[in-house]
Amino acid sequence: MSSDNIRIGLIGAGRIGIVHAGSINDTKGTELTWVCDPFVENAQKLGDQYGAKVSADPMEVINSGEIDAILIASPTPTHVDLLSAGIDAGLHVMCEKPIDLDINRVEALRDKVNNAKVNVTLGFNRRFHPQFETINRRVKAGEIGNIEQLVITSRDPGPAPQSYIAVSGGIFRDMTIHDFDMARYFIPRIVEVSAVGANAFCDYIAEENDFDSVTVTMKGANNEIVTIINSRRANYGYDQRLEAFGSEGMFIASNVSPTTVQHFNGNYAEQRDPYIDNFLELYAVAYRRELALFVEGVRTGQQLTPTFDDGRAALILADAAHESARTGKSVKVSV
Amino acid sequence: MSSDNIRIGLIGAGRIGIVHAGSINDTKGTELTWVCDPFVENAQKLGDQYGAKVSADPMEVINSGEIDAILIASPTPTHVDLLSAGIDAGLHVMCEKPIDLDINRVEALRDKVNNAKVNVTLGFNRRFHPQFETINRRVKAGEIGNIEQLVITSRDPGPAPQSYIAVSGGIFRDMTIHDFDMARYFIPRIVEVSAVGANAFCDYIAEENDFDSVTVTMKGANNEIVTIINSRRANYGYDQRLEAFGSEGMFIASNVSPTTVQHFNGNYAEQRDPYIDNFLELYAVAYRRELALFVEGVRTGQQLTPTFDDGRAALILADAAHESARTGKSVKVSV
Amino acid sequence: MSSDNIRIGLIGAGRIGIVHAGSINDTKGTELTWVCDPFVENAQKLGDQYGAKVSADPMEVINSGEIDAILIASPTPTHVDLLSAGIDAGLHVMCEKPIDLDINRVEALRDKVNNAKVNVTLGFNRRFHPQFETINRRVKAGEIGNIEQLVITSRDPGPAPQSYIAVSGGIFRDMTIHDFDMARYFIPRIVEVSAVGANAFCDYIAEENDFDSVTVTMKGANNEIVTIINSRRANYGYDQRLEAFGSEGMFIASNVSPTTVQHFNGNYAEQRDPYIDNFLELYAVAYRRELALFVEGVRTGQQLTPTFDDGRAALILADAAHESARTGKSVKVSV
Amino acid sequence: MSSDNIRIGLIGAGRIGIVHAGSINDTKGTELTWVCDPFVENAQKLGDQYGAKVSADPMEVINSGEIDAILIASPTPTHVDLLSAGIDAGLHVMCEKPIDLDINRVEALRDKVNNAKVNVTLGFNRRFHPQFETINRRVKAGEIGNIEQLVITSRDPGPAPQSYIAVSGGIFRDMTIHDFDMARYFIPRIVEVSAVGANAFCDYIAEENDFDSVTVTMKGANNEIVTIINSRRANYGYDQRLEAFGSEGMFIASNVSPTTVQHFNGNYAEQRDPYIDNFLELYAVAYRRELALFVEGVRTGQQLTPTFDDGRAALILADAAHESARTGKSVKVSV
Repeated sequence: MSSDNIRIGLIGAGRIGIVHAGSINDTKGTELTWVCDPFVENAQKLGDQYGAKVSADPMEVINSGEIDAILIASPTPTHVDLLSAGIDAGLHVMCEKPIDLDINRVEALRDKVNNAKVNVTLGFNRRFHPQFETINRRVKAGEIGNIEQLVITSRDPGPAPQSYIAVSGGIFRDMTIHDFDMARYFIPRIVEVSAVGANAFCDYIAEENDFDSVTVTMKGANNEIVTIINSRRANYGYDQRLEAFGSEGMFIASNVSPTTVQHFNGNYAEQRDPYIDNFLELYAVAYRRELALFVEGVRTGQQLTPTFDDGRAALILADAAHESARTGKSVKVSV
Repeated sequence: MSSDNIRIGLIGAGRIGIVHAGSINDTKGTELTWVCDPFVENAQKLGDQYGAKVSADPMEVINSGEIDAILIASPTPTHVDLLSAGIDAGLHVMCEKPIDLDINRVEALRDKVNNAKVNVTLGFNRRFHPQFETINRRVKAGEIGNIEQLVITSRDPGPAPQSYIAVSGGIFRDMTIHDFDMARYFIPRIVEVSAVGANAFCDYIAEENDFDSVTVTMKGANNEIVTIINSRRANYGYDQRLEAFGSEGMFIASNVSPTTVQHFNGNYAEQRDPYIDNFLELYAVAYRRELALFVEGVRTGQQLTPTFDDGRAALILADAAHESARTGKSVKVSV
Repeated sequence: MSSDNIRIGLIGAGRIGIVHAGSINDTKGTELTWVCDPFVENAQKLGDQYGAKVSADPMEVINSGEIDAILIASPTPTHVDLLSAGIDAGLHVMCEKPIDLDINRVEALRDKVNNAKVNVTLGFNRRFHPQFETINRRVKAGEIGNIEQLVITSRDPGPAPQSYIAVSGGIFRDMTIHDFDMARYFIPRIVEVSAVGANAFCDYIAEENDFDSVTVTMKGANNEIVTIINSRRANYGYDQRLEAFGSEGMFIASNVSPTTVQHFNGNYAEQRDPYIDNFLELYAVAYRRELALFVEGVRTGQQLTPTFDDGRAALILADAAHESARTGKSVKVSV
Repeated sequence: MSSDNIRIGLIGAGRIGIVHAGSINDTKGTELTWVCDPFVENAQKLGDQYGAKVSADPMEVINSGEIDAILIASPTPTHVDLLSAGIDAGLHVMCEKPIDLDINRVEALRDKVNNAKVNVTLGFNRRFHPQFETINRRVKAGEIGNIEQLVITSRDPGPAPQSYIAVSGGIFRDMTIHDFDMARYFIPRIVEVSAVGANAFCDYIAEENDFDSVTVTMKGANNEIVTIINSRRANYGYDQRLEAFGSEGMFIASNVSPTTVQHFNGNYAEQRDPYIDNFLELYAVAYRRELALFVEGVRTGQQLTPTFDDGRAALILADAAHESARTGKSVKVSV
């Protein structure tokens, strides 16, 4: 491979790390140089597959002098320290969402990131799904006039296990976080957050003082209203829709069926198969496009979105929703 | 009611006569004055419902001097004589399709009809269904450039009984006749007809030397190709679709679901109920609009389509298809 | 007509009164006996059309001894008094929504209505639209298990004039009132209401201290979450959708296109015409069905929904939303 | 790479060869060992990209002793000789469609292929598109009972240049050939072929005595009717649909939009972007799956479809259609 390649150290060889390793391999002008995971056998597998060096110690990778960038795909509690270390080492950083579950730790890192010469990007992959990217581009081109209402529906196929819920930070910080970022992709300035949560079906989520179903309503600085509808479970597959409504029209992105096939008989018409229920399959294209844009940002020196501050904003909105759902009062925010 | 009303004598109080009686009642400026049926109790029911006189003898109605128009909804073999008598009596005539199953009887009546001062219209109700009428208007407005291909799919919910099939004149004259007229609604000049028939599922239709499934291909005078696909049975309801393909685009009319409701679960997504399987319900609007336009033609003196010659052309195409399906050779026509 | 007909006195011959007069005429077993309107020429037109007596004074109609029921389609402020007078006269009453804009006046009438021997029904016509009725029936049959989330989208084609807005009682009592009733059609027991309002596009609505765009979130007694999204303007036609999400699946009712026609060309695919933008056309079937069920209730003596208490509940929810949107706090309710 | 890999020699480094090289690279257990093209610089590019040897001479590749299989992606007139040479060398062969434009050359090779110990597969890629594969599987599982009618719509975005048309063998052998194979994927035994051709829009196709628009009708051995509708040009993108209609229901595969995005405004509703107009993009998944199944056949020794005889059958049907469109007579076939 050419020496002009962006050399990447991948921190984390779990489920999402595997996806990123594949994207790096598929993306021209990149090179997977190091793979790091405390479960070193996981790292080894990816290293063997893609011809990368392997380590159990992220600092060995960061300080190797052999990479241009790190991709942080390790557990959330490690993100802030790795981000900081990567910046200190002069590396560009792409970090999985969320930055952290604690806004104070995020704030403490903020100045360093914003003064850094390197490129720091957050992994809000949904921005890069072609259907949401298309609507965003067309809304910004004015095709629906002023945006007035944004409705985001996100339902997962099924809830994570209790052990995960227990440390997830709650549905707003763990699941709605994607929708908060999606909201700001369209309406960056949010001024007020209301949220309602319910325990509709999952006892162990209730035991963790968390909700399985929520609706969040937010007001934008220009009188926009954002509505987010979440459930931890949808038996017909991944439910990920968006509706952007404006003064001159509307865009809707609906769900993706595995094929276009429809079935008709004496009992029904136009029946389709359930939607894709695997987010890695659903968002495969988005993960690759996200990486390609990160690489472009590194090459051109131009800061691309979503930024660290976008990650911070999403967490601020999640915290506000968390509070509102418990107090029954709307929460003013400034992001 | 006002004396300016178009006074109509309805000949035939069967299934389709009942529909027309309702349309007359719903249409402003019309008056159902006489109802005639040899089963006079059927006529009586409609007469009672709508305040019309009743007769078992069509000539009593035609010669009553109390009507402006007749609507012929009696069995096909009676159409030619009633048409002729109506014209002789100076009445406007709307006649159900087909004119007759025998082209010679149609030809014998042709000059009289074309020289008549009255308005004679054929009851090809599908032309008046809003979806087909909309496509026709937009095609004529040039929205898809030159029309090049027309594809008509017509499948009935289920076959008529053997007794009906036996006297139906065969699928081309009985069922495809609607599609031949629909084809000419878009492409009036047809020059060649090919047809393929099959006995796919219904033994008693085969016993009558008729087909249960056919495809007809026709060429238009301007190199258009028309494809008609028929089946006597579709278990998901009435299947009535049309595709007009042109140099600059395409229109498609698809089937009508009873509601917009879609159902989703672990086994499927976007499931709808079967289509409407009752043609009277499906075409209720078309029947009313057909009558309204007939009345408009009577009022304005302007000849409206479909004309007697449109009915003749449909029969010529049906005869050609009948021949082609039996000889395996295309048949030249001039309509 | 037969003396077994339900004889109806129609109070109000304005836009909605005209619709009801047509429905009465189309519905077997009913008879439009009196029409009343202070603008007596409006009453006269309907009276002439349908052969009914005419009055400018509702009490003349109510006390005529010639009717079995009144249909109140007069302005909202008259509803309570007419309801009361109708009950006093032993008449069945179908009353347009809302009962009143003032909950105190509603409460004051409540005992009388609930102790009355006659049938009192509220005109929440949307319950009777086939798509919502179908979903409701299928949800109650258990086809999606337990209902957990209900999402109602209602956007009007355009805002009413300022003069109307000024006396409308605000968007929640005037427009969302339909959605509050629709919510209770699925989830009768609501315990908490939150609302967010915005002035996104219409200055004169802001001048009246009202909102043009709102989102309402409600919790049901069984941990259901209801989300209602409203706008006073949608340029693509009437936008009336509903999504019922449950433990075992989902139903969606989408908008009704004027035809099934789709257009394709070099710039786009599957384009349809804008949705129907006239609620009388969109809900014509619902208005007829609503009347038919009222008549059935009168005949059978069985109380049908929506009841007076349903109308009261919708107003309580509207008042709660009104308060919540102004205080930023959720409001507990008991309906 | 492991020595257990299937080592493939790719003959032809043009547009379709590039696709196959990518598929080989993406498919586990395969190795692109040689690339051959008379324009050796084209071969060199692929060789450099994937680490393969390069030659201008296919016999050097076939006789190298370093490969297990050849993939023939060279111009049609070379297919027969390369197939023969590959078999002689004991290599498995995957050959692009069609085998040849001359049925006599195909017949002359037939015995050799059918007696060969190696696996010979034809590259009818559409069989491997997920939507067609899904319908085929479900039809074979009996989900629509007996198949009675098959309707295939295939329209290309635009016609090939005149130079290509001149040597293409005509629309039936060049374009419809895919649809003939698709037809036999569902209904293997065809007994009769009728075809109608037209020159609707392209003068230079007419100059080559070829058609730009055709409809083909075929009868199956069990009274099935197949209808194929083709045009060389569709301005809304690639139009590739299939309808399988049976005694107990129907399957439809419709076109693939680039995204699920729909646009609504005052002029229209539900508008989508034009369909994908690049067949390599549309069928990328199909090409990969086709190769994976070929490799599986090579590994397991099991003959997979489509076979050489499938390729021969498609050509026989194309020849029959060619004749029928010129004589106006249906042609009996036995495939």
